[in-house]
Amino acid sequence: MASVIEVADPADPRLADYRDLRDVELRKHVETEHGLFLAEGEKVIRRAVEAGFQPRSFLMPERRMEALADVLATTDAPCFVMPERLAEEVTGFHVHRGALASLARKPLPSVDEVLAGARSVLVLEDLVDHTNVGAIFRSGAALGFDAVLLAPRCADPLYRRSIKVGMGAVFSTPWTRLPDWYDALPALSARGFTTVALTLAEDSTPIEEAVAGVERVALVLGSEGHGLSPRWEQSADRRAIIPMREGIDSLNVAAATAVACYITSRR
Amino acid sequence: MASVIEVADPADPRLADYRDLRDVELRKHVETEHGLFLAEGEKVIRRAVEAGFQPRSFLMPERRMEALADVLATTDAPCFVMPERLAEEVTGFHVHRGALASLARKPLPSVDEVLAGARSVLVLEDLVDHTNVGAIFRSGAALGFDAVLLAPRCADPLYRRSIKVGMGAVFSTPWTRLPDWYDALPALSARGFTTVALTLAEDSTPIEEAVAGVERVALVLGSEGHGLSPRWEQSADRRAIIPMREGIDSLNVAAATAVACYITSRR
Repeated sequence: MASVIEVADPADPRLADYRDLRDVELRKHVETEHGLFLAEGEKVIRRAVEAGFQPRSFLMPERRMEALADVLATTDAPCFVMPERLAEEVTGFHVHRGALASLARKPLPSVDEVLAGARSVLVLEDLVDHTNVGAIFRSGAALGFDAVLLAPRCADPLYRRSIKVGMGAVFSTPWTRLPDWYDALPALSARGFTTVALTLAEDSTPIEEAVAGVERVALVLGSEGHGLSPRWEQSADRRAIIPMREGIDSLNVAAATAVACYITSRR
Repeated sequence: MASVIEVADPADPRLADYRDLRDVELRKHVETEHGLFLAEGEKVIRRAVEAGFQPRSFLMPERRMEALADVLATTDAPCFVMPERLAEEVTGFHVHRGALASLARKPLPSVDEVLAGARSVLVLEDLVDHTNVGAIFRSGAALGFDAVLLAPRCADPLYRRSIKVGMGAVFSTPWTRLPDWYDALPALSARGFTTVALTLAEDSTPIEEAVAGVERVALVLGSEGHGLSPRWEQSADRRAIIPMREGIDSLNVAAATAVACYITSRR
């Protein structure tokens, strides 16, 4: 059972995990260096704990405890109780979903573990927007993708915003970081995956054709602004586009991924 | 040619159009009641002006003027020049894209005008998230939709965030408000459109089947949380789902729309 600790001072050092949540650059360092991540809201917290992540602590106003009683019963982590207006001074914003939890990251699995039995995989190069990363995990999970691989510099799926937008798909989908950037795609080809890069390259074919009849597919997605690096674009087995109306800006990466996942799931 | 006016006081009443941009509720009233909307960033401002919207004024630091010189040359509206740190005191945040413009709304076209010649139409019920509205306009434009109709309470496509996410698709896509909510879908059916509601209703069929061979389609989308109202769900000609993996939360509305638009565009 979590130990309930009422905290009156927003400067209390035990609340360090929850400090300045709106400062994205600060949080990136704090969270990865301390091996923690934050979950926000009853539903997401419950999913994180059910997925086997160990809580370090909780922070919520007293009236939120009842809804999470079953979760709090499973852990010895402290539950810091604080009125919302004081908690705001810690986090730097109004926590709409009421409850926060700080959880310990787990060691990332190996690429072998993540790919075991996988038939459809998403590979994200250098996405920078946590909203997009979360949305892509969610679409992949809903549309039949089995795993996600991230380039070394792709944005963190365990960042608070990614988790929230992903509706917890980041807990249920096997994922890891690729150890190497340069030869990441040839290494996937060597494992039996056909790597299909979504890109506007001149030799791109419509994605329906690019994935038709392919047994094991790795769909490769680039960053929001510049798309894929030339190395990844050229080292993929195939380049594919989503056919679009002429003269229109391309789809955003989350929308394009949803469409590409749908098509690939029906190959 | 725009008249260049240096402004030193953030409280200057001529800057009223740009005040407190982060206060969404306030802005909703200010912008619709005064018949204005804000465009942010050189690219979006240029598209708005090219689409025929009349600027009321501009606000930018001096060094941003050169990039917009061609646009400023086309109008007599004042260009208020102010260093960024002072502009922040007006708007309430750091304007990443440097330049802002306040533009006059135009009278909304009639439903007849919007539907003239249209073969594929999006109909949005009560979406509340401006990001989703913008993303849906962008996906619709990219994937061959001709027009967008909005229920009376759907979020504003000319809100700053909708425009930014939509990459200006809201300027290039014909759209209007439906005058009536209750009979909106039967009225579309009477005009020769097959209305296809995206919903998890029990009698939903896979969307590929629902749109197959249909000449004029109106794809009907509900709000992020509760989906379509029972009235709209039941008064649509057909109900359709995007087939998904079991046990997974549905796609978010922007991702679902992108997939549905793609499928519908290839019917």
